[in-house]
Amino acid sequence: MSESERRIIAYHEGGHALVAYHLPEADTVNRVTILPRGQSLGVTQFTAEEDRYNYSRQSLMARIAVGLGGRAAEELTFGADHVTTGAENDLQVVTDIARNMVTRWGMSEQVGVVFADYRADGGGAGLNMQRIDNPAQSRTLIADESGNLSLNGQFIPARQHAFAMLAPGANKPSSVSMASTIDLEVQRILNEGYAIARTLLQDHRDQLIKLANSLMEQEQLDRKQFQALLQE
Amino acid sequence: MSESERRIIAYHEGGHALVAYHLPEADTVNRVTILPRGQSLGVTQFTAEEDRYNYSRQSLMARIAVGLGGRAAEELTFGADHVTTGAENDLQVVTDIARNMVTRWGMSEQVGVVFADYRADGGGAGLNMQRIDNPAQSRTLIADESGNLSLNGQFIPARQHAFAMLAPGANKPSSVSMASTIDLEVQRILNEGYAIARTLLQDHRDQLIKLANSLMEQEQLDRKQFQALLQE
Amino acid sequence: MSESERRIIAYHEGGHALVAYHLPEADTVNRVTILPRGQSLGVTQFTAEEDRYNYSRQSLMARIAVGLGGRAAEELTFGADHVTTGAENDLQVVTDIARNMVTRWGMSEQVGVVFADYRADGGGAGLNMQRIDNPAQSRTLIADESGNLSLNGQFIPARQHAFAMLAPGANKPSSVSMASTIDLEVQRILNEGYAIARTLLQDHRDQLIKLANSLMEQEQLDRKQFQALLQE
Amino acid sequence: MSESERRIIAYHEGGHALVAYHLPEADTVNRVTILPRGQSLGVTQFTAEEDRYNYSRQSLMARIAVGLGGRAAEELTFGADHVTTGAENDLQVVTDIARNMVTRWGMSEQVGVVFADYRADGGGAGLNMQRIDNPAQSRTLIADESGNLSLNGQFIPARQHAFAMLAPGANKPSSVSMASTIDLEVQRILNEGYAIARTLLQDHRDQLIKLANSLMEQEQLDRKQFQALLQE
Amino acid sequence: MSESERRIIAYHEGGHALVAYHLPEADTVNRVTILPRGQSLGVTQFTAEEDRYNYSRQSLMARIAVGLGGRAAEELTFGADHVTTGAENDLQVVTDIARNMVTRWGMSEQVGVVFADYRADGGGAGLNMQRIDNPAQSRTLIADESGNLSLNGQFIPARQHAFAMLAPGANKPSSVSMASTIDLEVQRILNEGYAIARTLLQDHRDQLIKLANSLMEQEQLDRKQFQALLQE
Amino acid sequence: MSESERRIIAYHEGGHALVAYHLPEADTVNRVTILPRGQSLGVTQFTAEEDRYNYSRQSLMARIAVGLGGRAAEELTFGADHVTTGAENDLQVVTDIARNMVTRWGMSEQVGVVFADYRADGGGAGLNMQRIDNPAQSRTLIADESGNLSLNGQFIPARQHAFAMLAPGANKPSSVSMASTIDLEVQRILNEGYAIARTLLQDHRDQLIKLANSLMEQEQLDRKQFQALLQE
Repeated sequence: MSESERRIIAYHEGGHALVAYHLPEADTVNRVTILPRGQSLGVTQFTAEEDRYNYSRQSLMARIAVGLGGRAAEELTFGADHVTTGAENDLQVVTDIARNMVTRWGMSEQVGVVFADYRADGGGAGLNMQRIDNPAQSRTLIADESGNLSLNGQFIPARQHAFAMLAPGANKPSSVSMASTIDLEVQRILNEGYAIARTLLQDHRDQLIKLANSLMEQEQLDRKQFQALLQE
Repeated sequence: MSESERRIIAYHEGGHALVAYHLPEADTVNRVTILPRGQSLGVTQFTAEEDRYNYSRQSLMARIAVGLGGRAAEELTFGADHVTTGAENDLQVVTDIARNMVTRWGMSEQVGVVFADYRADGGGAGLNMQRIDNPAQSRTLIADESGNLSLNGQFIPARQHAFAMLAPGANKPSSVSMASTIDLEVQRILNEGYAIARTLLQDHRDQLIKLANSLMEQEQLDRKQFQALLQE
Repeated sequence: MSESERRIIAYHEGGHALVAYHLPEADTVNRVTILPRGQSLGVTQFTAEEDRYNYSRQSLMARIAVGLGGRAAEELTFGADHVTTGAENDLQVVTDIARNMVTRWGMSEQVGVVFADYRADGGGAGLNMQRIDNPAQSRTLIADESGNLSLNGQFIPARQHAFAMLAPGANKPSSVSMASTIDLEVQRILNEGYAIARTLLQDHRDQLIKLANSLMEQEQLDRKQFQALLQE
Repeated sequence: MSESERRIIAYHEGGHALVAYHLPEADTVNRVTILPRGQSLGVTQFTAEEDRYNYSRQSLMARIAVGLGGRAAEELTFGADHVTTGAENDLQVVTDIARNMVTRWGMSEQVGVVFADYRADGGGAGLNMQRIDNPAQSRTLIADESGNLSLNGQFIPARQHAFAMLAPGANKPSSVSMASTIDLEVQRILNEGYAIARTLLQDHRDQLIKLANSLMEQEQLDRKQFQALLQE
Repeated sequence: MSESERRIIAYHEGGHALVAYHLPEADTVNRVTILPRGQSLGVTQFTAEEDRYNYSRQSLMARIAVGLGGRAAEELTFGADHVTTGAENDLQVVTDIARNMVTRWGMSEQVGVVFADYRADGGGAGLNMQRIDNPAQSRTLIADESGNLSLNGQFIPARQHAFAMLAPGANKPSSVSMASTIDLEVQRILNEGYAIARTLLQDHRDQLIKLANSLMEQEQLDRKQFQALLQE
Repeated sequence: MSESERRIIAYHEGGHALVAYHLPEADTVNRVTILPRGQSLGVTQFTAEEDRYNYSRQSLMARIAVGLGGRAAEELTFGADHVTTGAENDLQVVTDIARNMVTRWGMSEQVGVVFADYRADGGGAGLNMQRIDNPAQSRTLIADESGNLSLNGQFIPARQHAFAMLAPGANKPSSVSMASTIDLEVQRILNEGYAIARTLLQDHRDQLIKLANSLMEQEQLDRKQFQALLQE
C-alpha cells in the first residue's frame, strides 16, 4: 500500500476515534489501527462503559457523528474533491441507524410515533425492552396481527393480555408521501450528524494531525496509548 | 444492568400502567415488573373485566394511549433527546391498531366505511362478529369473491345467502392517493393517542415518580400493590 | 358474553335486517340470530324471491346499504365513539361489491364502461351472461387475448366468432390516476350506501329498538317472527 | 329463470345484434339466442363475410360498439339504475380491444406509433402480418432483442436481415405518465364506442323492442330469421 | 385471402421497401413479397452492403422510418380510419430501437450519456465494440459491479484494468421522472421517424402505387426486379 | 470489417486513450488496439502506477471522463448524427460509477452522506476500507441489521463493538422523490464528465487524428509507442 493511501486511512480512522473522544455520549475508543487484516484496511474499536440494552436519541446521534467522522476527516484534510470511496460502509451503517430512528423508534418529529418501517424483511427485533410474558403454563398463547389471542389453536376471548407482542407481524407498505417524508428526515439526521463530526474535528485539528501521524508511525494504538496521546 | 437503564425501564413501564389506570376504557393493570426475563426487560400485564369479542373505537384509542404511555413517560421525565429505542415494539403494536381502525374497521371519517387494507397477506379474520351460517346439510356452499355462490362445485343461482363471508378474498391494492390519506389518518390517530397519554402523565406526575421509584425498589407490583400505591 | 356485548350484536344484526326490510330491492330476511355458533356471533340470513342470475345497479346498492346497516345501527344507537370492530367483515363485503361495480360492471359514470379490474388474480368469472358458444364439433376453438382464434392448435383466419370470450385473459395494471379515480368512486358509492342505511334506521328507530330487544330476549327470529314483529 | 331476467337477457342480446346489423363494418349476425347452455345465458354469434387477417381501425370500433350494444340496450330500456352485471364479459372484451388499439396497434393519436404494451406477459403474437423469412437453409438465425443476429449460436455481422422479428422480446414497463395517457385514451375510445351503440339503438328503438319480444317468444333466431324480422 | 386484404398487404410491404429505397442510410431491399408463408403474410427483406458492427444514429433513424413505412403507406392510401392491426410487429421493432437509442446508446439529448435501461432482464450485450481483454494467462479475472477486480477468487488491488466490463451487471430501476422523460423521448423519435416515412411516400406516391400493383400481380419482387421497376 | 468501421473504432479507442493521457488523475494507458478479438472490437487497457484500495472523487471523475472519451471522439469527428451504438458498454460502466458516487459513496452534495443504493441485489462490498475486527477467540459475533450483537447465537448486551459491519444488510427502497434526485445527480455527473472529455479532445484534436491514423495503420500501440507518438 502506498504512503498516500496509508495517510488517507490514518486520517479516516483518526476521524472516527477523535469524534468519539469528544462526544460524551459516544462509546469509549478501545483500539485504533491501520494494520490491514483480511478485507479490513483499518479498524476503530469501541467499548461501552457498561452493558447497553436501550439507546437514547442522543447516543444514537453520537454514533452517527462517530460513523461520519472518517469522511469528515478526509474532507477537512484533503478537500471535497479528494474524499474517497472508503466511507461506503460507514454510510451504510449510519443510514441504517438514522432510518431506524425515523421508522422504528419514533425519533423524528415529522414522522412521529408511527412504526413506518416498510423494508422487505421485518428486520431483527432489536435489543430493546420486550415486554412479553411467557405464561408459566405450557399453553401456547398466540397474539395475532390484529391483537387477537388464541390459546392452543383455540379462539379465546381477549380477557387477559400483556401489552406487547414479540413479533407484531409483517411490515406494511407506506404511501409515497410517507416514504418521501422518511427519506427527508433520514437526510436531515445524517446532515446533522455530519455537521457535529465536522465541527468537532475542525475545533481539534491539531489532535487529528497528531493522531494520524501517530497511526502512520505506530500502525496501532490501544486505549491507553490513544488517551495518553490526546492528553499530552 | 445499570441503575440508569433500570430507571428508564421503570418509568417506561410505569407510564404504560399509569395511563391505563386513569383511562376508564382501558383494561385493568394486573402486574407491572422490571424483572428481566428471557428477552423481556419489563412487562405491564392487563386483565379485562370480562371476555371481549368486539372493541369500540374508544377502547382502541385507550389501548393506543396506554401503548404510547411508555414513550410519553420517558420524554416527560428525561427530555426529548433522551427517549430510547425501548419503544420500538410499542410503536409497532399501536401502529397496527391505528392502521386497522382506518383500513379495516371504518373508524376514520376521512377514509370512511371502506375496507382498504392493502397489506401483502390478508391478515387474520379478527375476533369480530362473523355472521356465517354453516348450512346443516353436508353440502359445500362456497361464496366466491364476487359474491356468487356455488354448491358442491356446481354453479347455483343465488337464491339464498347469508349476509357475509368468512374469508372475502384477497386484498386489493389501493391507489397512491388512498394510501396517502390512510397514512395521514394513522399518524393523526397516533398523535391523538400520544397527546392523551402525555396529558394524563403530566397531570399525575407525582404518581408516575412514586410508581417508578416503587418499581426500582420492589421490581414487581401485582394488581393489589399497584392499586394500593396509587390510592395512598 | 356480557350483556353489553350482546346488546351491541343485537343492534348490529337488527340494523342489517331492518334496512333489508325497508328496501324493496333487497332480498327477504329469512332469519336473524345472535346465537354464537363457531366463529359466528350473529347471523342475518336472506332468501331471494327467485333465482338470480344478474344483478341490477339498484339491487347492488341495496345490498351495500343492508351490509352497512349493522354499523349504521351501532353509530345511531351508541354514538360514533362506540362503533365497534364488529363491522370488519361487512366492510370487506360491501367494498368488494362497490369495487366490482366500478371496475368490472361499468356502473360508475366517472370510470365508464371500462373493465378496470387490476387485482392480482383475475377473479371469478361471475354469474353473469356468458355468451360463449361451444361448437358442437369436437374441435378446440381457442380465442386468445387479442381476439384471435385458433382451432385444434392451428391458426385459422377469423371467419366466425361469437361475441365474447370465456376467460379474456390477465388483468392489466391501470395507471396511477385511474386507480385514484376508482378508489374515489368506491368511496362515493359506499358513502351513498351508508347514508341510505342511516336514514332508513333513523326513520324507523322505534322498530330498531323493538327488534334489538326482541333479539336479546329470544336470541333468534325466523322469517315469520321477524315480519310479525315489525308489522305489529 | 324469471320472466324479468329473460327480458333483460333478450334486450341485452338484441342490443348486440341490432348494433351489428346497422354498422357496415361489423360482422354479420349468424345467430341470436337466449337459451341458457352451460354457463352461457345468451349468445350472439357472428360470421365474417370472408377470412380476416388484419383488422382496420374502423372495424375494431364497430366491434367495440357491438360489444357495448348489450349494456346500451339495457340502459336505454330499463334506465341507468337497472343496468346489470351481465355486461361484465363484454366490458372485458372491448377494453382488451381498445387497449390493444392504443398500445399495440398505434391507433391513438395521443400515444402515436409507440408499442406501449406493458402487460406482464407479452401476449399472443396476433394474427397480423408477420414478415419473417425462415431461411431455407437449415441454419438457425436468431434475431435478439437489440436487433442483432446470431447464426447457429455464432455471432455474425448483421449483413442481411428481414425487417421484423417473430417475438421481439419482453415488454417494457412504461412511465407513470404514459400509463395515464394510455388509460385516458382507452376510456375515450370506449366512450366513443358506447355513444355509437346508444345512438344506433335509440334511432332503431322499434326494432330493438321487436327483436327482444321475438327472442322471448322463440328463444333463438338464426341468420335468416333475424334478417327477415328486421326487414319486415 | 380477399383482394382487399392482399391490397393492404401490398401497400404495407411496398411502403417498407420504398422508404428504404429513398433513404441513403437504409439497407438495400433484397426481396419484397406478399406470398403468405407460415405465419407470415408478407416480407420485405434487406441486405447490407457490407458487414455491420456498429450502427450510427442516422442509420437507426433510417431503420425506424423503414419500419414505419408500412403503416405510413396504409394511412396515406386508405385513410386514418382504415389503418390496420398489421403494423403491430413493426411498432414493436421500432419502439425497441428507439428505446435503445434513448436508454442504452446515449442518443437522446434530453437523457444524455446515461445508461438508463431499466428492463427486467438486462438484454443482450449488443454487437457493439466490447473492449475486454481476456488475459492470456489462465487466470480468472472478474470485474465486479463496482469496478473492483478479483483474480482466481482472490481480492486483488486494482493495479491493472481494461476500460470496460463484459457484463456490467444488473439493471437499475430509474426514477419515475426519468422513466417519463425516456417515454417522451421514445415518442419523439418515433414521431420523427414516422414523419420521415410519410413525407417520402407522399413525395413518391406514383412509385408506391406502381410498386403495390406490381406486388399484387407478381406476388414477389427480387432485388433486380424491384430496382428495375422503380428506375423505369 | 470496412474501412469506415475501422475508422470509427480507431477514433473511439483513441478518444479513451487521449483523455486518459491528459488527465493527471487517470490511470496510465498500457495498450490501445483495434484488433478484433473474440467479441471485442477494440481495447484500451490501463495500468495504475500503484495498487489501489480506495478511489477519490477526482479519480472517479477522471475514470468517467475517460469512459466517455470514446463517444466524445466520435461526436467531435463525425458529428452528432453519426455517433454509434459502440458506446453502449462505456455508458453502462460510467453510469455505474456515477450512480455509486451518488448512492454509496456520499459524493453528491444534493443527496449527501446517505447510503441510498436501492438496487435489487446489494452489490459487492467494494474494495474500500472495511473496519471489521474478527475477534481472535473462536466465538461467532454477529452484528445484525439494527447494530445489535449476538455471540454464538446468544443475545448479548452491546458492551463492545467495532464501528462497522461486514454486510450491513438488505438495501432499502427509497422514496420516489429521492430516486428522482439521485437520477438527476447521476445525469449531472455524467454530463460533467462528458464535458471534460469533449473539451480535452477539442484542445488536442491534432493528437486525436494522429492517434487514430496510427491505430488504423499499426492496429495496436503499446505504452511506449503510445507515449512516443504523443510526445513527438
